[in-house]
Amino acid sequence: MPAPALNAEEIGELLHEVFPQAFYPGCGLSIERVDHGDVRVRRAFDANFLRPGGTISGPTMMELADFAMYVAVFSAIGRQPLAVTTNLTINFLRKPAQVDLIAQARLMKIGKRLAVGEVNIYSDGMADPVAHVTSTYSVPRNSG
Amino acid sequence: MPAPALNAEEIGELLHEVFPQAFYPGCGLSIERVDHGDVRVRRAFDANFLRPGGTISGPTMMELADFAMYVAVFSAIGRQPLAVTTNLTINFLRKPAQVDLIAQARLMKIGKRLAVGEVNIYSDGMADPVAHVTSTYSVPRNSG
Amino acid sequence: MPAPALNAEEIGELLHEVFPQAFYPGCGLSIERVDHGDVRVRRAFDANFLRPGGTISGPTMMELADFAMYVAVFSAIGRQPLAVTTNLTINFLRKPAQVDLIAQARLMKIGKRLAVGEVNIYSDGMADPVAHVTSTYSVPRNSG
Amino acid sequence: MPAPALNAEEIGELLHEVFPQAFYPGCGLSIERVDHGDVRVRRAFDANFLRPGGTISGPTMMELADFAMYVAVFSAIGRQPLAVTTNLTINFLRKPAQVDLIAQARLMKIGKRLAVGEVNIYSDGMADPVAHVTSTYSVPRNSG
Repeated sequence: MPAPALNAEEIGELLHEVFPQAFYPGCGLSIERVDHGDVRVRRAFDANFLRPGGTISGPTMMELADFAMYVAVFSAIGRQPLAVTTNLTINFLRKPAQVDLIAQARLMKIGKRLAVGEVNIYSDGMADPVAHVTSTYSVPRNSG
Repeated sequence: MPAPALNAEEIGELLHEVFPQAFYPGCGLSIERVDHGDVRVRRAFDANFLRPGGTISGPTMMELADFAMYVAVFSAIGRQPLAVTTNLTINFLRKPAQVDLIAQARLMKIGKRLAVGEVNIYSDGMADPVAHVTSTYSVPRNSG
Repeated sequence: MPAPALNAEEIGELLHEVFPQAFYPGCGLSIERVDHGDVRVRRAFDANFLRPGGTISGPTMMELADFAMYVAVFSAIGRQPLAVTTNLTINFLRKPAQVDLIAQARLMKIGKRLAVGEVNIYSDGMADPVAHVTSTYSVPRNSG
Repeated sequence: MPAPALNAEEIGELLHEVFPQAFYPGCGLSIERVDHGDVRVRRAFDANFLRPGGTISGPTMMELADFAMYVAVFSAIGRQPLAVTTNLTINFLRKPAQVDLIAQARLMKIGKRLAVGEVNIYSDGMADPVAHVTSTYSVPRNSG
């Protein structure tokens, strides 16, 4: 595995620069580990995410998966703020606990035009994933 | 087409009851039309949804699609607060304008165990969809 | 709607040229209608497609959807034999009858790099679709 | 990991019994490893699968993924011939070589009503997957 194109701190700065409404101090999202195309991020628990039966809302998990995939794409191709999500498929597997969510994203393909990855989302401290995501990103033409 | 199991006002009350953190006065979501398994909802534009290049964030559209599908499911099977999303696939088609988003959801199957639907999301006033979603819901056993 | 870039006969010749193992006289696939990015194709019933309970196999429907989308892509962008499927999502909605399958494909986006479409598959003569597909194709760089 | 509900030989007999048109001596599909909800299967190379540019057709990979998932479902829940695929998402990652295809399927959830799994497909002997699949199966009510 090659070294990441950017480390966690650099990706955090880039995300804050390009997504200031989504990633800022106190937003509840944090980057825990960055390898090349393989990252772990965290979403702090917030009671506003709760839905009937004590579950965490689906959109909360979709947003976390999209965030994790952006971190993974940046870790592989560096500063490319215009990469855009072209599609995303999420399977909800089991009810999350009322704790932080952990997302592990891994790129399966880093092509000249498309990057494809998968994300497993876990309730912090538990072994079985609560959701699984695959997602595709369109990479700008001038990138490797 | 049979009459809807619940009308727009009844679905609004039910959503406020079961999803109070997501659907409440001033949340920006509204129900515009309810037929049986075929509905239109609106998300008011909010500058917080913006992302680089002036686009609207993907999670904003995923949340709207999920909301539209819940309205469609309730319109077909009535009060079933425990229906849960089992999966969702979104294709992002073009850059949304900085206006309200309109989602039109339509159930393709209303089975004893699963409901499957599709959602087209539009920028208000424009003809071409900005995103397309298919989604599956697990229906509680005691429902029709 | 603009005129199609190729008509049904021209697309049939192109498919036979580039997919000789899949599309040939007697293969059971036929092109019934071609508009620009909007087509209807047919798969003749064959008892070999049957599965337990008298249903038609899932892969038969996936192959038909992929065929329908290729016809739709060719109808919109003309001779581009190297367009490749990048992803496909199928939802199986109800049990097909033991008759021909009809697929109606429609492109939702025809971009410089990606084409995205949806396909509804029907049992011939019946109103409710048996499956719904969304699919993305990567378009070669030199095309419009 | 619990022991599989059925071993490779038992699953092969069951598949031949319920899918005689798809799984029979000489069909080119074989079961190589069966653990509980985690299996490896093989599709022998056949020149009929080739498409322009020397790639293997998408439907060939979709059929293999569906086969692998059936083997995985049987390995976890035993004789349940009526389990049906409810949806399937495939991402094509890179061009397969002209060799056998290997599919590794793993169930991510084995619920009372739904089983969800993922499949990685490889060209025999190569490290990077050529396709990734997620798929959901509806499990009959009387099963565990």
